[in-house]
Amino acid sequence: MFEAPYLLFLGEAPDGLTAKMAQGIYDWRPESVAGQFRMEGCKADLGIKDLTIKDAVAAGVKTLVVGVVNRGGIISESWKSVLIEALEAGMDIACGLHNLLRDEPDLAKAAADNGRTLYDVRIPTVKYPVANGKKRTGKRCLAVGTDCSVGKMYTALAMDREMKKRGLRSTFRATGQTGILIEGSGVPLDAVVADFMAGAVEWLTPDNDADHWDMIEGQGSLFHASYSGVTMALVHGGQPDALILCHEPTRKHMRGLPDYQQPSLEDLRDVALRLAQVVNPACKVAAISINTQHMDEASALKYLEEVEKRMGIPTVDPFRQGAARLVEALV
Amino acid sequence: MFEAPYLLFLGEAPDGLTAKMAQGIYDWRPESVAGQFRMEGCKADLGIKDLTIKDAVAAGVKTLVVGVVNRGGIISESWKSVLIEALEAGMDIACGLHNLLRDEPDLAKAAADNGRTLYDVRIPTVKYPVANGKKRTGKRCLAVGTDCSVGKMYTALAMDREMKKRGLRSTFRATGQTGILIEGSGVPLDAVVADFMAGAVEWLTPDNDADHWDMIEGQGSLFHASYSGVTMALVHGGQPDALILCHEPTRKHMRGLPDYQQPSLEDLRDVALRLAQVVNPACKVAAISINTQHMDEASALKYLEEVEKRMGIPTVDPFRQGAARLVEALV
Repeated sequence: MFEAPYLLFLGEAPDGLTAKMAQGIYDWRPESVAGQFRMEGCKADLGIKDLTIKDAVAAGVKTLVVGVVNRGGIISESWKSVLIEALEAGMDIACGLHNLLRDEPDLAKAAADNGRTLYDVRIPTVKYPVANGKKRTGKRCLAVGTDCSVGKMYTALAMDREMKKRGLRSTFRATGQTGILIEGSGVPLDAVVADFMAGAVEWLTPDNDADHWDMIEGQGSLFHASYSGVTMALVHGGQPDALILCHEPTRKHMRGLPDYQQPSLEDLRDVALRLAQVVNPACKVAAISINTQHMDEASALKYLEEVEKRMGIPTVDPFRQGAARLVEALV
Repeated sequence: MFEAPYLLFLGEAPDGLTAKMAQGIYDWRPESVAGQFRMEGCKADLGIKDLTIKDAVAAGVKTLVVGVVNRGGIISESWKSVLIEALEAGMDIACGLHNLLRDEPDLAKAAADNGRTLYDVRIPTVKYPVANGKKRTGKRCLAVGTDCSVGKMYTALAMDREMKKRGLRSTFRATGQTGILIEGSGVPLDAVVADFMAGAVEWLTPDNDADHWDMIEGQGSLFHASYSGVTMALVHGGQPDALILCHEPTRKHMRGLPDYQQPSLEDLRDVALRLAQVVNPACKVAAISINTQHMDEASALKYLEEVEKRMGIPTVDPFRQGAARLVEALV
């Protein structure tokens, strides 16, 4: 979709958390990042080169990526002079905020005048087909969760990186705005019209060589009353050969749903596998990825060991332990 | 959404099948229909009064409903003079075609000039919320199928009619364009953006009195690779107390998917019930509705008896046998 190298725009971010999209892009795709742009008063710092727009042009930057989230997801007026300077200097702009670049008349005009493109990654730009369910070549791995936001994107990215490190063939397939900003392409699945969700996932994960793996970013959960339909479309459109179960063991209730408890890993395994086998009878549950960020090291390791013994498949926290065993479970 | 009584517009339909939407409306809501309007050369005939626009006004008609489907789903130029006359005479127009009334400048102008409304029922007009999963009062019944187009809408309509005949409280909740044209309101679920599907179903089936049943029109199938995400949103947004399993036993493969077989009724029961119990642990599979239109009477009755014995719950074809036993299974 949009091209590297990137200039990561941090605006006037008051702290590092506000610039977490930029941080995610730099963590996962450092080779795509030429530098950062911080406005006066910016308190976030990725610890990389500060570039002016002129410097960025000299460094061959193709896209300025808005890597900052502000309250309300709006495009700040104070950013405009920088964004317009970037467009005039020949860069495209990519942004994942709720408010759209294209809806700002001055940005739209500057882009048109300079023949540049504004990438609002929350908005589908492709006319996706209805899914046809046809068996595709190549392999696909899908992360499914007991809940939303339990580490599905992190797991897919960590596995993709580990695959490449081993010289194996893999592509991260982004399905949400952060993933799309990291990868530079993908499908903003939660914004796709119902009839075309599974077709969008098929489009995202097309026929490929027999030894190539798509690492598909999961969304929602089959057990989450608000978003399960999106997850279902991923399971059927993604045609997975392998599922990775993702879980965060300290949640008190489902995210955003105080009356709902997370399912057990056994429940997730049984339901997700049954549904995945509708489109791929050979699908297997390969491994378990646990997000133990809210546990101390000793409790985390003990928990991982217990789950692995109980479930009988490799169980790791890829943040603490790396994704090696997850990848070994696939291949 | 739009108001009865209706004038059913059949245009120049070359045969009865082309006017099947009008037929459906008249079959299920005869009390809402004042008459039909047939243009010169129309070969379809519902066997009801032919009304001119003037007659229709005199009969108190509020809405002209386009009850004809032509190739490509377009609004024929030859219809325009009638539709404009209707708008000028004070009627609204409702239409379920792919091409939209509102995109025809002459219709849009006539509607605006006369203060009338054009209802394109395929297009959502409400800003639906994200689902919150909160337990709602009242009862809900959802028809789920082994495949698409196996009789889910018919089943819900037949059960709604039977409930009312018995003096029980029931509302048909439409989720597709034909259902919406029949009921005059509903949610065109396949056109809703992914994140809001389950919320749209919650919106459609709100809190109600304890003895009131919503008969929710099903869509797609949990086992249909193209549309399962839509079905999933119905199961979780609909919060059903009862599921009716729908099946068409003579299908050679899943509709539109030559490589896929229908699941067994046992598979449908187990998967749909497990998922429905995420939002309503008290949900039960109440009965089975079989579409035996492609079987002769003797084979049909034999098949129904066998399935009932095997599955242990009431099994009927509501078209042949009525919906009495389906309703009795609920209450």
